[in-house]
Amino acid sequence: MATPVSESAVGTADLETVREFAQQLRVDSVRSSTSAGSGHPTSSMSAADVLAALVARHLRYDWDNPEDPANDHLIFSKGHASPLIYSIFKAVGVVSDAELINGYRRFGERLQGHPTPILPWVDVATGSLGQGLPDGVGVALAGKYLDKVPYRVWVICGDSEMAEGSVWEALDKASYYNLSNLIAIVDVNRLGQRGPTELGWDLDTYAKRVESFGARAVVVDGHDIAAIDEALAGAEDATRPTVILARTHKGAGFSETADKEGWHGKPFPPDMAERAIAELGGERNLRIRGPVPGPDFPRPEPFSRPAITLPSYELGAKVATRRAYGQALAALGARTDVVALDAEVSNSTYSEDFGKAYPDRFFEIFIAEQQLVAAAVGLSVRGYVPFASTFAAFFSRAYDFIRMAAISQADIRLSGSHAGVEIGADGPSQMALEDLAMMRAVGGSTVLYPSDATSAAKLVEIMADLSGVSYLRTTRGAYPALYGPDEPFAPGGSKVLRRSDGDTVTLIGAGVTLHQALAAADTLAAEGVAARVIDLYSVKPVDAATLLDAARATGGRIVVAEDHYPEGGLASAVLGALDDSGLPLSVRHLAVRSLPGSGTPEELLDAAGISAKHIVEAARDLLR
Amino acid sequence: MATPVSESAVGTADLETVREFAQQLRVDSVRSSTSAGSGHPTSSMSAADVLAALVARHLRYDWDNPEDPANDHLIFSKGHASPLIYSIFKAVGVVSDAELINGYRRFGERLQGHPTPILPWVDVATGSLGQGLPDGVGVALAGKYLDKVPYRVWVICGDSEMAEGSVWEALDKASYYNLSNLIAIVDVNRLGQRGPTELGWDLDTYAKRVESFGARAVVVDGHDIAAIDEALAGAEDATRPTVILARTHKGAGFSETADKEGWHGKPFPPDMAERAIAELGGERNLRIRGPVPGPDFPRPEPFSRPAITLPSYELGAKVATRRAYGQALAALGARTDVVALDAEVSNSTYSEDFGKAYPDRFFEIFIAEQQLVAAAVGLSVRGYVPFASTFAAFFSRAYDFIRMAAISQADIRLSGSHAGVEIGADGPSQMALEDLAMMRAVGGSTVLYPSDATSAAKLVEIMADLSGVSYLRTTRGAYPALYGPDEPFAPGGSKVLRRSDGDTVTLIGAGVTLHQALAAADTLAAEGVAARVIDLYSVKPVDAATLLDAARATGGRIVVAEDHYPEGGLASAVLGALDDSGLPLSVRHLAVRSLPGSGTPEELLDAAGISAKHIVEAARDLLR
Repeated sequence: MATPVSESAVGTADLETVREFAQQLRVDSVRSSTSAGSGHPTSSMSAADVLAALVARHLRYDWDNPEDPANDHLIFSKGHASPLIYSIFKAVGVVSDAELINGYRRFGERLQGHPTPILPWVDVATGSLGQGLPDGVGVALAGKYLDKVPYRVWVICGDSEMAEGSVWEALDKASYYNLSNLIAIVDVNRLGQRGPTELGWDLDTYAKRVESFGARAVVVDGHDIAAIDEALAGAEDATRPTVILARTHKGAGFSETADKEGWHGKPFPPDMAERAIAELGGERNLRIRGPVPGPDFPRPEPFSRPAITLPSYELGAKVATRRAYGQALAALGARTDVVALDAEVSNSTYSEDFGKAYPDRFFEIFIAEQQLVAAAVGLSVRGYVPFASTFAAFFSRAYDFIRMAAISQADIRLSGSHAGVEIGADGPSQMALEDLAMMRAVGGSTVLYPSDATSAAKLVEIMADLSGVSYLRTTRGAYPALYGPDEPFAPGGSKVLRRSDGDTVTLIGAGVTLHQALAAADTLAAEGVAARVIDLYSVKPVDAATLLDAARATGGRIVVAEDHYPEGGLASAVLGALDDSGLPLSVRHLAVRSLPGSGTPEELLDAAGISAKHIVEAARDLLR
Repeated sequence: MATPVSESAVGTADLETVREFAQQLRVDSVRSSTSAGSGHPTSSMSAADVLAALVARHLRYDWDNPEDPANDHLIFSKGHASPLIYSIFKAVGVVSDAELINGYRRFGERLQGHPTPILPWVDVATGSLGQGLPDGVGVALAGKYLDKVPYRVWVICGDSEMAEGSVWEALDKASYYNLSNLIAIVDVNRLGQRGPTELGWDLDTYAKRVESFGARAVVVDGHDIAAIDEALAGAEDATRPTVILARTHKGAGFSETADKEGWHGKPFPPDMAERAIAELGGERNLRIRGPVPGPDFPRPEPFSRPAITLPSYELGAKVATRRAYGQALAALGARTDVVALDAEVSNSTYSEDFGKAYPDRFFEIFIAEQQLVAAAVGLSVRGYVPFASTFAAFFSRAYDFIRMAAISQADIRLSGSHAGVEIGADGPSQMALEDLAMMRAVGGSTVLYPSDATSAAKLVEIMADLSGVSYLRTTRGAYPALYGPDEPFAPGGSKVLRRSDGDTVTLIGAGVTLHQALAAADTLAAEGVAARVIDLYSVKPVDAATLLDAARATGGRIVVAEDHYPEGGLASAVLGALDDSGLPLSVRHLAVRSLPGSGTPEELLDAAGISAKHIVEAARDLLR
């Protein structure tokens, strides 16, 4: 493994050094993937020249201080080409050659198959294609409108991922917000996983699409270092978002793979790797660093986080939880790190309350839910506390982005309004009936479902400081406030609203069904049946101790009512908490079990079998 | 309600009649929404002229025979403008005025807030924007490549939904497949829900985007009947997909609402409705029908559905379930109604086996998972049996489309490969760890997760004849075949692979964890512990009887191991089946409880605590 060590080329390397650097990146991409026995060397080799020029001469980044808010951002959307980015980390001196070769893709190591923010130089996890550019839009929004610092956001895309609609959502928003600080570089190597891409090397069509979406398209030979360098320099001074379309050869630099099909995602066998390294001019150990933002470079103001005065609600006052969301969010806006985004329904989700109070920290994303979530992720990269809202049903449009946000360990807050059949006449396309299942299954998520305005407002305040993906499910209609302003709430909590020593059955609800459960308890009380009633406002984590206590106290007789399909929601959380209790359980699970239509909320709750009447019947049946 | 009845204008109405027809559609949109007290009259009024011209003079459709395979298809992507489409149904005589006025948005009625295929003239449910055009691509693929019948697919879009990336995925595929039979009409009324759209009346930018994506853009004044008529006629003879961009006024025809903000999604109060109807020239009762495909019009060949010979596997032969998927799918291809689609990973999902055998019935959708699912939905509209495949993780990209497919009551089959940590070195972005939760929560879905090649192949054959959304989860690695060729499988079934009268604990797995459970049972047997082992290959519906029997037989001691996050997957299905059993349960739930990294499958299964070793420990612990 003895390799010649050149002098360090910290600063701005000349173009000949960049050429050498690119060859080193190719060699190291081959070495690391061959050593791991998996990975994507050819997808790394096509983009090596572009990345070498970028890192050596244009990316303004202090590798010893990745937290410097003046740093540029480098988002590696084509995450499968991880050997390339890891080889860069070696060249700049933050990862050793030993780690690159022996750690790549190994168990317990940080150089995973696709990059994640376990590495301090990685902003967001990639590997699900078409997400880097939307994420980059979020970072660029922060730079231009919030930080007001002239860092640039460089996003390295593959050509195959241009087929994802999310890329066009991103360019649409990049031009709408005139993100001149955003530069996408597309590695047009014309070969996808199983063969040629749709457009091949039709750079002209790519350029037309990019220009029609309002960005500046620059076509360049992606193996001509001088041409690349010029394109990168031009992008630094652009007054519009730039997309550099680099025509490249997959597997470039090695005659056995250059522009050849059949080598996607395949490490070279050792003998082939040896031939590749030889053809690439052998191993090198250049240490290269590019420009660094100096001490006088503009940096953002520190955040101001004053104490918040939440709205308060009279007991019994009828206020929709979605309205409380908007009011609490507006109150939270006193914190300068809090930002809000919406997908063109802010007058329904009530995020407009924030937008009116803090228009500079409110981003209208229009009807593009993937970009909505990605922008939140990007804003979180810069330390902002994003709250993104739309109808609960439409977060399903962005599920892959939410999943990836969790892998990015991004702290983002989502608020979904108009949940369940309770919405009434609009019908099933607008009814979230699977959102609890979807959000609970996100790694490390928090899922909250308040029943009244007080708890909704308090949970919104708590969400601001939660890690990971947190989700608030709000309800369309107005229901009475159940809690006074001093009542505490917390993830993992619940409230026991009816309780006596003589309880014989437990009724569990959240959101609209809690109000149904309370009405049911009143009916049962009139019949002499004492029912315990639990507000399970924290669906994940769930208050197992309170559930266990109630199950014990009421002989395992439990009715769970939820405005959601039966799978993966409230009852699933309850059963998961009691699964190892050793208690005999008799659970009646009331949920939406067939496709709803239109109607009034009352008609639809009743038709779904989740209204007070059905809860009473289920309780009676359990006690028979 | 007495209105003048004109003579019927069946055939091809003249332009003056079309103008009258459009006014009637506006009047009826106002009347129905005001009567319902909810709905979107202004979004209906903007598109009334376009729809009137289309329905009266261009849409070739036999309203008395909606199943005629020669009919054109009319997909109403802007589903919130349902008063308009329902007013059309009245005008063509398939819905009465009484139903339109008294049934709209009412409980138990078929004229729901957004149209669904409960109505025989509706192909797909709409209401989640940006889905109509992708669905239309699927229908147009069927028309051009499979049916080979010259019906046209007309899709009515709003302008706000052009912000959804899925629209651009659709146009990309429309041009790739040169779907000259697809015509989108965009109602550019420049006003969204809460204010102006991004592009307003910038028709030029819309046109540039459309042309850059390979479709023919035609800009027209959407209130000039003659101009609309000409544009529609031109689209009929186009050699490329057409997008007609119609410049319109929201609320057109009524001075109090035309091009005014603040009227989105609001019915007019009765007095205002009265003024609107008066300004629109009063109620009319025109009966209008357009052209009908005659008896000599080409119609598709009937399907051939010969008996299928499935691949068979030697007991113990190591074959990946994803490979069995491809082989079984290729065998199913003998049926001419079976089609396959993939998102550029067919060499990983093995749908390439079908693609090689039946290239004419295989559609490469490239990396556009929303379009992948939408194309399947569109193909199902024409009676085809679509199987769509990609990595299981990436179906999360299309969750809103899957949700809407269920509301459309579409029969589609999804196969997700590379599930769970078992995939190894690629890392978490490629690991589906929430797909079971996501797919179980889809209304009416079937979720299957085979452990061996035999069951995988048999389940693929069964999926071909299932209703609704069905999902097959396959595994990357090769594991031994457990079943002989005569073993039967069915949704709702399970297999008890180890069973004795002395069983003291039940081990439940599916997919890779079943093999771990079998190994665990062997270890336990060597210690003198008899464990029942269940292959829970049908995750939804689930075999409650077998689970209950096992729980009873083994004292409620159950170990469930799943390669999935803890929420909403295998254990959730098990607990849901036992929730009302009255049995004391002691369930140990082994699942992936923290973010995985890279490694070998063995390392990752072990690190997640779902390997045989952990199952043995959990069982021992339960028996302690």
